Amino acid sequence: MKALNELATPALILDRTRLSANLQRMHQRAAALGVALRPHMKTAKSAEVARLATQGQPGGITVSTLAEAAYFAERGFSDITYAVGIVPSKLDVVAAIERKTGARIGLLLDDAGTARAIAERAAALGGNHPVHIEIDTGQHRAGIAPDSSALPEIAGILAAGPATEVAGVLAHAGHSYDCRTIAEIETVAEAERAGAVAASEVLREHGHPCPVVSVGSTPTALHAGDLTGITEMRPGVYMFGDRFQSAILSCTPEDWALSVLATVIGCYPDRDLALIDAGGLALSQDRSMEAIDSTVSYGALYDATGRAPLEGVSLATVNQEHGFIRGRVGTLKVGQRVRVYPNHACMMAAMYKAYNVTDGADEIVAEWDRVNRW
Amino acid sequence: MKALNELATPALILDRTRLSANLQRMHQRAAALGVALRPHMKTAKSAEVARLATQGQPGGITVSTLAEAAYFAERGFSDITYAVGIVPSKLDVVAAIERKTGARIGLLLDDAGTARAIAERAAALGGNHPVHIEIDTGQHRAGIAPDSSALPEIAGILAAGPATEVAGVLAHAGHSYDCRTIAEIETVAEAERAGAVAASEVLREHGHPCPVVSVGSTPTALHAGDLTGITEMRPGVYMFGDRFQSAILSCTPEDWALSVLATVIGCYPDRDLALIDAGGLALSQDRSMEAIDSTVSYGALYDATGRAPLEGVSLATVNQEHGFIRGRVGTLKVGQRVRVYPNHACMMAAMYKAYNVTDGADEIVAEWDRVNRW
Repeated sequence: MKALNELATPALILDRTRLSANLQRMHQRAAALGVALRPHMKTAKSAEVARLATQGQPGGITVSTLAEAAYFAERGFSDITYAVGIVPSKLDVVAAIERKTGARIGLLLDDAGTARAIAERAAALGGNHPVHIEIDTGQHRAGIAPDSSALPEIAGILAAGPATEVAGVLAHAGHSYDCRTIAEIETVAEAERAGAVAASEVLREHGHPCPVVSVGSTPTALHAGDLTGITEMRPGVYMFGDRFQSAILSCTPEDWALSVLATVIGCYPDRDLALIDAGGLALSQDRSMEAIDSTVSYGALYDATGRAPLEGVSLATVNQEHGFIRGRVGTLKVGQRVRVYPNHACMMAAMYKAYNVTDGADEIVAEWDRVNRW
Repeated sequence: MKALNELATPALILDRTRLSANLQRMHQRAAALGVALRPHMKTAKSAEVARLATQGQPGGITVSTLAEAAYFAERGFSDITYAVGIVPSKLDVVAAIERKTGARIGLLLDDAGTARAIAERAAALGGNHPVHIEIDTGQHRAGIAPDSSALPEIAGILAAGPATEVAGVLAHAGHSYDCRTIAEIETVAEAERAGAVAASEVLREHGHPCPVVSVGSTPTALHAGDLTGITEMRPGVYMFGDRFQSAILSCTPEDWALSVLATVIGCYPDRDLALIDAGGLALSQDRSMEAIDSTVSYGALYDATGRAPLEGVSLATVNQEHGFIRGRVGTLKVGQRVRVYPNHACMMAAMYKAYNVTDGADEIVAEWDRVNRW
């Protein structure tokens, strides 16, 4: 295989050593909490990563698109939860994937009208579609409250459908991203647990077994004190880590497994500016770090090895194919390579079709594909 | 072909009727100004669009990546300018594309050290590489001042190299994006013209013919009063238009040719929230409109036909696969389709591998591929 310095830039680099440590840490968390780990593949979107992430675990995987569902189903993952709200027009695609691969794809919805439409379309398509009901435990994105009258109503509709069944309840405490202390995350994690469990109890009181009680976000998975009543968790970004996850205490910079290798293509010390060939497309335009630090920055700048931060400079702006390094650029030279760690790993990784895998050193030991788009 | 309502969402839609009108307008501008049009393909990244954009024009095309250079060269475009700074490690790729396709790829640089390294590498590779010198006319991204002593120095290095030649000078008035009136754009356009022409005169005084005097940005191409001394212009985003280009007076919403078709996947009137299946990956996370309007918004919401704006709502937030519509969402229903026009067309289009082409109606008349990545 190639060495890092032979790669054309910009290139996506995945440090397998760090990845493995991150996976191991989450395996241990799931084991300690007594729940199955159903890793969310929306970050990695890679069969190779999914195989490592599910090693020795009973659970299946979680996906964010039907393109992921098809890709993983075709590669032997037979237990998949599609954790974005389903609409009837997408059920035909789900059914086609299931027929082709034999995989079972769990669905998600949160209103009675959609449940009726899905039950009806499922009846026309046949099969037996496991459907989760989404519970809102404080993020107020999708989902209904555990005490909503819609909860038993939806379950009743799904249970009555000849081709749908109530798989269980699913919550995502996305508002854990607003936390800044572990104590806050523990509180959100407990609300996520309590909400999901309360919803499962409502369903059981109404005669639905509710085999799945699912929660998941990387911060709550890492910091939950107790998951009594929960059957599985679905974190995803823990695999790679990123600046934002470090800022909210999910990892440290030494855990970051994903980066972009870039080349300096211009250096203008009189303007306090250097340009790299990684701009808004190569790095994504993610600015989530602004929630932590008002300084706009599109990634963390390191030397070519990815081990030493570049001091006195920041990645202040991006154009489509230009990244703007501001600050003390006097030590940078045209042709020199640098590494950029992401604000948000999911978004940066999605700009690439494959990972150049290293074990932390200069050698590329593998290339792993990704499934992008929808 | 399919109809729009049969497409899986999110899907990228290109209105060919509007595209053609936009192309025609720029053809007329170039003709009126007496310059060649070398359209920048960084927005469209499509051979089909490039064929339409270069119809009846003498000029070649401009590209922003070597992946574009290879793609277009393999599809018969033989006169290509790679308008991002070259580094020696990329020259081998350029030479390989030229050898394989017979295309001639113009290069860009702006410092003497890089010129020496490129001249040396070119000598080793052979061939005859046309190199443009980048001139800064006020954006202060890349480029040198027209009166910089580096200008004749760089030209001398390139001319002395056995496998490099001075193609000319190239300027990009990216700071036209900071303008808010046509008068301001005219001033920037004149500075762009004057700087490029002044640089060309310096080169000629030093005995370099400087056949190419290139300028280009959509706003300056549309509003330049005069381009005396300029040989070509390189606008790109004019082909599609977008919200930002409307805000800086390059087009109107009726010219927008690019949009994403999305589906409502959740509706929560009590939260003033509806969710669509187009989030940060489907729409990009471009927030350039914040320079115009401090309200954060990830695109302009229209009905499924793309003709009627949705009133009282905005696309306020994106997660990876969720777009958050805030406001008066009471009229939206799960399963309903909507259209999102981009803040920045280049970034939204880059999230897709192909265009679903319409003539403004419901029928998909063609699918056109794109060349993404590097």
